[in-house]
Amino acid sequence: MNRREPLRVAVIGTGRMGADHVRRIDRVVSGARVTAVVDTDAERAKAVAAGVDGCAAYTDPAAAMAAADVDAVLVASPGPAHEAALLAAFAHDLPVLCEKPLTPDAASALRVMEAEQALGHRRVQVGFMRRYDTEYVRLKALLESGQLGRPLMLHNRHRNVASPPFFTSAMLISDSVAHEVDATRWLLGHEISAVTVLRPTPSSGAPDGLRDPQFVVLETDGGALSDVEIFVNCGFGYQVQAEVVCERGTARIGDGHALVTHMAGRWGGTITQDWTDRFAQAYDDEIQAWVDTTRRGGVTGPSTWDGYAAAAVCEAGVRALEEGGRVEVALVEKPALYR
Amino acid sequence: MNRREPLRVAVIGTGRMGADHVRRIDRVVSGARVTAVVDTDAERAKAVAAGVDGCAAYTDPAAAMAAADVDAVLVASPGPAHEAALLAAFAHDLPVLCEKPLTPDAASALRVMEAEQALGHRRVQVGFMRRYDTEYVRLKALLESGQLGRPLMLHNRHRNVASPPFFTSAMLISDSVAHEVDATRWLLGHEISAVTVLRPTPSSGAPDGLRDPQFVVLETDGGALSDVEIFVNCGFGYQVQAEVVCERGTARIGDGHALVTHMAGRWGGTITQDWTDRFAQAYDDEIQAWVDTTRRGGVTGPSTWDGYAAAAVCEAGVRALEEGGRVEVALVEKPALYR
Amino acid sequence: MNRREPLRVAVIGTGRMGADHVRRIDRVVSGARVTAVVDTDAERAKAVAAGVDGCAAYTDPAAAMAAADVDAVLVASPGPAHEAALLAAFAHDLPVLCEKPLTPDAASALRVMEAEQALGHRRVQVGFMRRYDTEYVRLKALLESGQLGRPLMLHNRHRNVASPPFFTSAMLISDSVAHEVDATRWLLGHEISAVTVLRPTPSSGAPDGLRDPQFVVLETDGGALSDVEIFVNCGFGYQVQAEVVCERGTARIGDGHALVTHMAGRWGGTITQDWTDRFAQAYDDEIQAWVDTTRRGGVTGPSTWDGYAAAAVCEAGVRALEEGGRVEVALVEKPALYR
Amino acid sequence: MNRREPLRVAVIGTGRMGADHVRRIDRVVSGARVTAVVDTDAERAKAVAAGVDGCAAYTDPAAAMAAADVDAVLVASPGPAHEAALLAAFAHDLPVLCEKPLTPDAASALRVMEAEQALGHRRVQVGFMRRYDTEYVRLKALLESGQLGRPLMLHNRHRNVASPPFFTSAMLISDSVAHEVDATRWLLGHEISAVTVLRPTPSSGAPDGLRDPQFVVLETDGGALSDVEIFVNCGFGYQVQAEVVCERGTARIGDGHALVTHMAGRWGGTITQDWTDRFAQAYDDEIQAWVDTTRRGGVTGPSTWDGYAAAAVCEAGVRALEEGGRVEVALVEKPALYR
Repeated sequence: MNRREPLRVAVIGTGRMGADHVRRIDRVVSGARVTAVVDTDAERAKAVAAGVDGCAAYTDPAAAMAAADVDAVLVASPGPAHEAALLAAFAHDLPVLCEKPLTPDAASALRVMEAEQALGHRRVQVGFMRRYDTEYVRLKALLESGQLGRPLMLHNRHRNVASPPFFTSAMLISDSVAHEVDATRWLLGHEISAVTVLRPTPSSGAPDGLRDPQFVVLETDGGALSDVEIFVNCGFGYQVQAEVVCERGTARIGDGHALVTHMAGRWGGTITQDWTDRFAQAYDDEIQAWVDTTRRGGVTGPSTWDGYAAAAVCEAGVRALEEGGRVEVALVEKPALYR
Repeated sequence: MNRREPLRVAVIGTGRMGADHVRRIDRVVSGARVTAVVDTDAERAKAVAAGVDGCAAYTDPAAAMAAADVDAVLVASPGPAHEAALLAAFAHDLPVLCEKPLTPDAASALRVMEAEQALGHRRVQVGFMRRYDTEYVRLKALLESGQLGRPLMLHNRHRNVASPPFFTSAMLISDSVAHEVDATRWLLGHEISAVTVLRPTPSSGAPDGLRDPQFVVLETDGGALSDVEIFVNCGFGYQVQAEVVCERGTARIGDGHALVTHMAGRWGGTITQDWTDRFAQAYDDEIQAWVDTTRRGGVTGPSTWDGYAAAAVCEAGVRALEEGGRVEVALVEKPALYR
Repeated sequence: MNRREPLRVAVIGTGRMGADHVRRIDRVVSGARVTAVVDTDAERAKAVAAGVDGCAAYTDPAAAMAAADVDAVLVASPGPAHEAALLAAFAHDLPVLCEKPLTPDAASALRVMEAEQALGHRRVQVGFMRRYDTEYVRLKALLESGQLGRPLMLHNRHRNVASPPFFTSAMLISDSVAHEVDATRWLLGHEISAVTVLRPTPSSGAPDGLRDPQFVVLETDGGALSDVEIFVNCGFGYQVQAEVVCERGTARIGDGHALVTHMAGRWGGTITQDWTDRFAQAYDDEIQAWVDTTRRGGVTGPSTWDGYAAAAVCEAGVRALEEGGRVEVALVEKPALYR
Repeated sequence: MNRREPLRVAVIGTGRMGADHVRRIDRVVSGARVTAVVDTDAERAKAVAAGVDGCAAYTDPAAAMAAADVDAVLVASPGPAHEAALLAAFAHDLPVLCEKPLTPDAASALRVMEAEQALGHRRVQVGFMRRYDTEYVRLKALLESGQLGRPLMLHNRHRNVASPPFFTSAMLISDSVAHEVDATRWLLGHEISAVTVLRPTPSSGAPDGLRDPQFVVLETDGGALSDVEIFVNCGFGYQVQAEVVCERGTARIGDGHALVTHMAGRWGGTITQDWTDRFAQAYDDEIQAWVDTTRRGGVTGPSTWDGYAAAAVCEAGVRALEEGGRVEVALVEKPALYR
């Protein structure tokens, strides 16, 4: 492909996750636009399409994939609908980003895998988005650097404020721990060979009958262990933490702090060396705010008055530096335009 | 304006900062594209323009602003060139994002302010980008919530690894502390009324003759104090920290931690309540990575194999939950396509 | 008893731990003194006794316990010698502090317990000293306050830099995890009902043949789980950490920080309310340093010159407060006595 | 002197601080006992003396110092009474620990200093107890190690929940900042050459008329700066923080964390290498608790049952390690003696 034109994406499913991806492609990501949305609920599809320039609404994924202005597919429908959507995308040889889970069980996942192999090339990226989280990315890079030696154990914490009403004890594993399953495989580079699930007395904060929390031990074919506390009605916040214990030290993420290591008699983290790194997000948001406001015909942010006041204070500051003592700052009266 | 088409931006100045803004608008920000770049160095302008679809190179800012495909101007040229660029933009009534400083001194800033007033409406956003930094934004919101009471003092730390060769003692004020001048005004909502600069013995790590570090005390017309440690050859890292001391507590940012408060007998921070908040960056980067790789005709990220392996482990996990004990995971052999 | 005279203690065993307890009673603890030390190595016993005023050396515990100037016994001999020492102490009806383990196995512990019951009153305090660690004490108090609700899980980390040469795989459990066994029982108030030990691939930093690290899961009769990472050749430091997960929040100790809780949307800790609390250790150490130096005929610490200089600076400070501006401090020349 | 007998101390002043020192010498410190207490309030002196074995009550300091059983003097009377007490102690050539301030002003301090010089040897230790605080001690040691290079600036925070009713604006300097004055001199090894006091608008939480907070800048004859935020009605807690900025890095104490450094691209702290270091306080408190309870004829702490239960669990653990899988723990029924 190697195209300069924006990628034209069909988003399958316009529930909470699908609608959020539509917003993301429309407003956040550069180089792509949403040209089709699909939902079995035609009204919902139309409502989402209406908010996006040049976006059509469909109820049938295959119809959207057959459209001339669709280059790629993002699957965000419920899990049981994934297999059909993936096979349809393969039929049109379209690249797919498929939200997790790939499919709800191993047998259907195997069928999808066989179909992709029949195609002869990879077409699917699965939505295990933790692999893109800045903290996980740093943890992975640190492990690959070899500084800490070989990983021996991985301790994971996964806590939600409250589970949705339809949540079952099995979903703590298949829906929640699924993330740690992928994180374990990715961080350690091993396949998981056995699973043990321990069930402490449920919290009185959990709905009746729900086994919450659970404690899961994953053994890997590389000999490392990964344990997971999953607690979906902890009540106090959303927390995802991971601590890798290696032969020469440990590294932890998810603590409110950035990556913290313990090795060679010291604990701590790194310090940014450059302002472009420290303030990258601020620059991005500043320019985005300017673009957004300007497109709406407005003006926002620090004004000419702010620029003037800063110049006046800095002038006084330089005098104070050079002459010593305290220097007063004199400003003109603030013009009406800037009040 | 209120346009659906992308905003077409002329970027004035293609040095380090200008070139970075061109990249930002081209690759990061949505809803805008760079249609003109301007530099007195024609070769540099051409080189930058060559990397962007539909972007022309100019040596004269006014010529770029007169082009039909320019809706807005981003000024990233050296400070002394700002006044002329701003006046030219006003002549075309174009919205401007002007990098800090607005102009190098109060007198020229005053002229710009008068010209904008003559225009009758605001056109300028000054590039004090800390107002867009997530941590500063949270600190500002906390102050405005009134939880901590009225601010009494603001302690600032501003440290750079090393200063560039051309840096003078006065530039520690006019170039570096300029950021804290704006942050003080913005966070406290007061104008600065007096400045004192204290000069400890310079660090032996600073170039000969440079008064580094300095300690600056800013008094405000609201009665609050703001002190600034500026140390541009600290050697160990880039650090920007701010601690506001209020009537009922303190709040600190820039410590590697997110916002930390001390009030009512407790120190600490808040815990995210939702996964969309905790992992927003991961989702954005995931979709951006997919778009970028797909446009290049490639495939990246978690594969169908990863989706299958996760499904198989979760199935075993659910059995372990329901039956108790340890359950082994059986995977098919890994197909060549996913190795 | 209820005595005003110091308690006269016989210390059984003068190895590393025993000798340290002799020093502790002699130099740190108030209200007690060591009047007898016992070791099968007579020379070692004599050497230790020689350092303490009025202390006799013995090779036979029973002989020491029969001495007229012995009120209580501290057992710090190797584990296999504990049973005999305890029974001897019971024979003299003496109170005993017995280092952990009480005895090396459950059968001998049962015999000791039966002997104490025959005595009709408790005489033994076992040396599980974590129950006296400030952080554990705070964690226990927090759990008992009920603020966090019922404990569901306890995550423990126990890491040593390197294991001594005689250490076996079983000793990771019986010597090291023994501490977490007691901490779990004490913190949760439950008995342990089942144990599972998982064995990741050993670290290459561990001696050949040693199963290090291990991961232990303790189930309790109250339905809570306690897991323990034991890693005795981690190489980087000594760490003992515990995190309790309760129905309404978590609490963690051992992180370099004091007790940190996560609950109700916030993480953090408490702030001391009083200087007597914050500086209790400083006052204790200050007076102890003064007593020690004075007994040796010396003088230490801040001098009269320091008191004078502080008074002169504070006088200048009060003038600066009252008159505004900068006030210089004039000191007399520093006398030779204080140089 | 070099005595083996306990040091016999007269404590002058039995207010809050004096009474606490009496308790400290009687109950915490080893090698000393209080043989005399002095207070102009005879009833108060008697009440305090009554709680200590062999302690006499006096109203006249000189009478106490003349007693045969007094080897040393601790002065904890109000500041204005210090000069007389110190001169009386010099007359008896007794060693003195004098609470801060040495005397209330520089002139009287000078007289005391001259009297001590006339004596020909040092007799006074002034009670600047921060020099004995573990965190300050570590900070001082780090500065002396030279790792961070020469100190350039010291930032201090000193916050109290609320000031006592008699507190004046000048006392923020002479009573509170006095501690930072000594800490600055001690940590930096310089004399203070000038003082500036800045006065932000007082907090509405401060009593009417009290200038609280204040911001004090101390200049030293070594060219380093020390700034102090003093805020005695901050409402939320007691905080004493210090951050030293050196040529190659910074170090901070008082944050709830132990000493944290920033240098060479990393922030963080050290990890204990040894259990004797990590648990020294626990061992001390354990033995003290045993001694105290035993002297009262009681038994406390972990019982024989706890020792037995731990042995039984560890036995099961070793079996689980050796045989794999889950091993149940069987305990005998808990005897009545241990319930």
